[in-house]
Amino acid sequence: MNVDLKQERKNASFQVEKITHILDGSPDRTSRRRELENIIRNDPSGIFDNSNNNYLHRTDRHVRAMAKGVRMLEIARKIGIGAGDKKSTIRNGPLEEGELMLSEDFFLLVNAVADELPLYLHWVMFVPNIRSLCDDEQQKLWLPLCRDFRMIGCYAQTELGHGSNVRALETTATFISEAEGGGKDGSWKIHSPTLTSSKFWPGTLGRTANTAMVIARLIDGDKVDRGIHNFLVPLRNSDSHKMLPGVTVGDIGPKIGYNNMDNGFAIFNNVIIPRRNMAMRFASVDKHGKYMKKSVDEATSKVAYITMMLVRAWIVDQAGKSLAFACTITTRYSAVRRQGFDESQPKVVQNNGITKLKPEKQVLDYTQQQHRIFPLIAASYCFFFTGRHLMKYLQHIENQLVSGTGSVTKTQVSDLHASSSSLKSLCTIISADGIEECRKACGGHGFLVSSGLPELLTSYLQNPTVEGDNHMLPQQSVHVLLKLVQVVSEGDEDGIMAYEKCDSKYLIKPMQRILSGDKAACTAQNLNEIMDLDLLLEAYQHRSARLLLEVANELQTKIGEGTKMNVAWNELLVEMARMSRAHAYAILLSNFTHGIKEVQSDPKLSVGKEEVEVLTDCAYLFAVYYIEKDLGDFLEDSYLEKSQTSLIRKAVLHMLSKIRSNAVALVDSWDFSDFRLKSALGRNDGNVYPAILEAAKKDPLNATNEGPGYVHLKKLYVDGVAKYDNFSGTASRL
Amino acid sequence: MNVDLKQERKNASFQVEKITHILDGSPDRTSRRRELENIIRNDPSGIFDNSNNNYLHRTDRHVRAMAKGVRMLEIARKIGIGAGDKKSTIRNGPLEEGELMLSEDFFLLVNAVADELPLYLHWVMFVPNIRSLCDDEQQKLWLPLCRDFRMIGCYAQTELGHGSNVRALETTATFISEAEGGGKDGSWKIHSPTLTSSKFWPGTLGRTANTAMVIARLIDGDKVDRGIHNFLVPLRNSDSHKMLPGVTVGDIGPKIGYNNMDNGFAIFNNVIIPRRNMAMRFASVDKHGKYMKKSVDEATSKVAYITMMLVRAWIVDQAGKSLAFACTITTRYSAVRRQGFDESQPKVVQNNGITKLKPEKQVLDYTQQQHRIFPLIAASYCFFFTGRHLMKYLQHIENQLVSGTGSVTKTQVSDLHASSSSLKSLCTIISADGIEECRKACGGHGFLVSSGLPELLTSYLQNPTVEGDNHMLPQQSVHVLLKLVQVVSEGDEDGIMAYEKCDSKYLIKPMQRILSGDKAACTAQNLNEIMDLDLLLEAYQHRSARLLLEVANELQTKIGEGTKMNVAWNELLVEMARMSRAHAYAILLSNFTHGIKEVQSDPKLSVGKEEVEVLTDCAYLFAVYYIEKDLGDFLEDSYLEKSQTSLIRKAVLHMLSKIRSNAVALVDSWDFSDFRLKSALGRNDGNVYPAILEAAKKDPLNATNEGPGYVHLKKLYVDGVAKYDNFSGTASRL
Repeated sequence: MNVDLKQERKNASFQVEKITHILDGSPDRTSRRRELENIIRNDPSGIFDNSNNNYLHRTDRHVRAMAKGVRMLEIARKIGIGAGDKKSTIRNGPLEEGELMLSEDFFLLVNAVADELPLYLHWVMFVPNIRSLCDDEQQKLWLPLCRDFRMIGCYAQTELGHGSNVRALETTATFISEAEGGGKDGSWKIHSPTLTSSKFWPGTLGRTANTAMVIARLIDGDKVDRGIHNFLVPLRNSDSHKMLPGVTVGDIGPKIGYNNMDNGFAIFNNVIIPRRNMAMRFASVDKHGKYMKKSVDEATSKVAYITMMLVRAWIVDQAGKSLAFACTITTRYSAVRRQGFDESQPKVVQNNGITKLKPEKQVLDYTQQQHRIFPLIAASYCFFFTGRHLMKYLQHIENQLVSGTGSVTKTQVSDLHASSSSLKSLCTIISADGIEECRKACGGHGFLVSSGLPELLTSYLQNPTVEGDNHMLPQQSVHVLLKLVQVVSEGDEDGIMAYEKCDSKYLIKPMQRILSGDKAACTAQNLNEIMDLDLLLEAYQHRSARLLLEVANELQTKIGEGTKMNVAWNELLVEMARMSRAHAYAILLSNFTHGIKEVQSDPKLSVGKEEVEVLTDCAYLFAVYYIEKDLGDFLEDSYLEKSQTSLIRKAVLHMLSKIRSNAVALVDSWDFSDFRLKSALGRNDGNVYPAILEAAKKDPLNATNEGPGYVHLKKLYVDGVAKYDNFSGTASRL
Repeated sequence: MNVDLKQERKNASFQVEKITHILDGSPDRTSRRRELENIIRNDPSGIFDNSNNNYLHRTDRHVRAMAKGVRMLEIARKIGIGAGDKKSTIRNGPLEEGELMLSEDFFLLVNAVADELPLYLHWVMFVPNIRSLCDDEQQKLWLPLCRDFRMIGCYAQTELGHGSNVRALETTATFISEAEGGGKDGSWKIHSPTLTSSKFWPGTLGRTANTAMVIARLIDGDKVDRGIHNFLVPLRNSDSHKMLPGVTVGDIGPKIGYNNMDNGFAIFNNVIIPRRNMAMRFASVDKHGKYMKKSVDEATSKVAYITMMLVRAWIVDQAGKSLAFACTITTRYSAVRRQGFDESQPKVVQNNGITKLKPEKQVLDYTQQQHRIFPLIAASYCFFFTGRHLMKYLQHIENQLVSGTGSVTKTQVSDLHASSSSLKSLCTIISADGIEECRKACGGHGFLVSSGLPELLTSYLQNPTVEGDNHMLPQQSVHVLLKLVQVVSEGDEDGIMAYEKCDSKYLIKPMQRILSGDKAACTAQNLNEIMDLDLLLEAYQHRSARLLLEVANELQTKIGEGTKMNVAWNELLVEMARMSRAHAYAILLSNFTHGIKEVQSDPKLSVGKEEVEVLTDCAYLFAVYYIEKDLGDFLEDSYLEKSQTSLIRKAVLHMLSKIRSNAVALVDSWDFSDFRLKSALGRNDGNVYPAILEAAKKDPLNATNEGPGYVHLKKLYVDGVAKYDNFSGTASRL
């Protein structure tokens, strides 16, 4: 164990294990996680060894990832994760056939592999889609095939020329009647009418899936375009895995990250599928080609919506985890890494004629290094508590919907849409930028793939774009919040009441205050007074309310001046993004502080005051750091004044120095094993330098003594000049 | 040609070619560049084809890059770049043997290859080092070997455990006298005493170079440690390319980018080299082991210093070019890409019973997309003008030093150190973040390696770290600037005079004003008044002066309170970074506007008022956008007031809409050929979608009909369930 890391761990004021239990949910869950991680790590097949990942050609890594996925599923079957396991984090209630794998333990097993598994999408996207979009008979037919991997599916929505604007998709599914050769029961003709309609991006579509849930425009028997619907399209023969007639699928080529995955393209050339391959839960077409919408009760449609938002909650949670991975690596390495002499001490220690340099400073002691890393540690915890809160709240709502108890209102659901949009957008960008900042904060060695940070970063980088582009979501959030402005402006008491259980409820009071003309301002006069989480939260809430009102006002003004709505809207997109960020920050800080309170009273956890204190320190740092970062927002309406900005800056430095001695312990608490970290710099024992060198030597470029490019290089020799050999021959070993 | 791009080009208000000439230096230089690009592109060897780069294993790409470098040098020899070419951008005066390649044309040729060439470092780092560190006799011996590639060298400074703190390097060079077996003339023993002393990172050290300029602690004949010196150490036999006895070198493994390059490690086990392999221009050791500093005239030592700063100027210039590459790709693609319907129009056009979707909006028309890209276009031009200014100024100073005319003062040189430190730090981070922002602004397709953006980004990412880490440089800059504070505070007229020709001269007046207690504030009352480059520059200059004074004050206060200097310094690092950024912005904006004026009067260029206008628009956008970004800095001392912040925001939107119609033409002006862009999204003809699909199909993962991982996948089949084949058999083609 590196002596510096040892000392850091000794300095911690709290028990690491207790925070680990918070992060896992309970001591039992911690044990179970470790147990499953051991099973993977010690699997006799050896297939889970990740130590050569970085040296493989992409094709080899993809094939190896497939082998890992298969072995992992074999293990899951063997130890009874699946059939015997009835707990799920994604849905409440008992799991059903075909969905068995969406359990907490299954996720633990997947995470334990610590490599990207293409097969994963079959369970987390394809199977849930069959369940939510297909009718009972279809589910009964297809789910057993999914369970047994006769049907390996993917969800094929985006097209080469079409991303988030789903209504613009071009792929067609045209009804073929018996008279047109569609058989007695009728058929569908799936077709890609243009190059831009090629399906593009769906994970596992390229080389893994034999079936796709294809989103296409439905043209019914009357040749009427009924818009976007889902169709189950076979892609490959399930025995030979060869492409079926009319189907061209392939991998879309290397990406900046996530290259185990075969994101794919598909071109359909008049592919005929049975009529009943249309997903028929919400609409159907009969054998005469007649289109019918099915009446679905409101709860069912809301549940489908909740599922989408659970994915967002999961993304927020993952943003925290991914960031914590990066923080773990960088914090540990910054404790081990020493650079720069302490100028107040002599530089060279002479000892018996042998020169010895005195040790340099720990990099973690530089305030600018703390300023780069510690707020990210705080953010990782903040995202954990927010993801946890969102998940619980969504499950609570889903319970009510499924059981028919309680009353879930439209306002609640659309408000969740707003907050989850804002949160997804902000958390994923903080995390993506934060991972890259952690990488840079490791100096040159952060550039090495063996540091673990490049792959962590490049794989993470999809998140700001997928599941709603971060630059598209904010306007959706503001669109919803503008309704609240109307309610508050009009003093509509009933309308206000409807926000009782909503995340955006906090906006009401500060908006009312601003509208009434009361001057709002921060009252803190010294460091002590500003270190008050309620006061800081109020600042965030005020900013959010102010920016929302400004967007509403500007929109109204523009419309009043005769600007068309779509033009005015476009002109306000930058401001909407700012408002959406402000909204997310207010929710994040609130969830952070509430989360800390909640775990204190959780009987499964024995959280002590030391653990509460260090988590609260993180909440403080989060609060003051992100005010400092967006200082203009708080100054421009004089909510903060000049003297308070220097208080904020002082508070940031104060919190950095307070967290310093707990920094390593805070990242240790996430309990990421070396097997999962895959980082020469982030090793638990701190022996980073031998690990870097060992990793370097593995590169196949080093396979031969002479350089592999020398065969070309020597062509440059010019004859007739003095031979260099005479010179180089002088090098020798004593 | 894509119709949208065609229209965009028609809409431009200026002549693209004229700005191209500005960027190249003159119409002649544009022609020469294109000529050399054609030679590379059309080379019959075919080796320069980059279209398979993305599918090669790292080893294969490295070897291929070596072949490219060799072929490029053969071409250079053939067409007389080198021997016949006497112009150089890096040094003034005629080029000398071994340095021939550092000419403008050589750089054009290297850039034309549009791939990373490891060999490049031999010329840009190793040879210049021999010239600047070795005495005449040494140069005469070694430079011809360099020219003829008998000696292929690298510069080996950093070690596994030591980066920017050069004084902490551990590698030793110990003098071995005749009595100790060092031969009649004496020898050196080069040794890596610890694991952390392994040389690590030097480019081409691993597999390419046969010689290294090794930085080591010199232990002289009296066993006295004389600190860091340079030693020419043979690594490999120049005929067989095998490692020499006692030398272990290898590649350090895959990196996040720049993987053609074999960055290397080296471990020296008591390697003996001749005494005269020590670089002896500035110090020498005689055959008795006696160490002597050589007296070098001040001009010579300043020239060496200028060379380092020329590298910084080059980095600023490259920051602009790299950013321009990204902007070219993203701007063109955003003009071609359409997403989202115009809600004011009907969505589906029905025509003869065939449904046709109306076209979506150009992504470039969304204000948030403009807000992401256009300021970066502006920054790319700003960095060009700043790099150009720095380069010219440094060459002017070098001329004076070499010719002995004029008087270059210490103040001038250290001021250049400050400004080049601040500029390097700011420009490389704006560029790194900007390239990534451009990548994200391409949506999902920006994740594709075939977009060209991932490689552009990951290769660029070294720049914030190398040549002075961006988080280390700011304090060096502030360290220098604090002297100016002292001079101004004391009202030292002579001292102030010394800053006459310095970049930091602008700080004097605003500092004097603040010190005199005068309230400084922006006077603009409307959009018209704020659109004034002098007024905006003044705001930047004021901020910079204010922050510098605050750092000085806080430092003084802390010291006054009894805090030790090193502790106080550490506590101010975050503020110093802020001040350094402010300094860089002030210099950048000033150089931008001066640069535009300069090119207007350049007789080689025929710049018209349209070109001046569009460049000035970019300067405006740069000015207002980066105030908006750091608004807190301008608000916290009330230099700006609330009403002015909304003016700034309005000004930003105003400039975005003004630049909109010139955006494509502004990126076209950089004249990056498709061969150099290597981007399916950035193609000059805008035919992006066929290009993406074509690139996808090339991935070796698509070599077989069935997926390559299916061999594993089918192990999951469970017997006894309904065969899926019956179902998939129904898919057929009409």
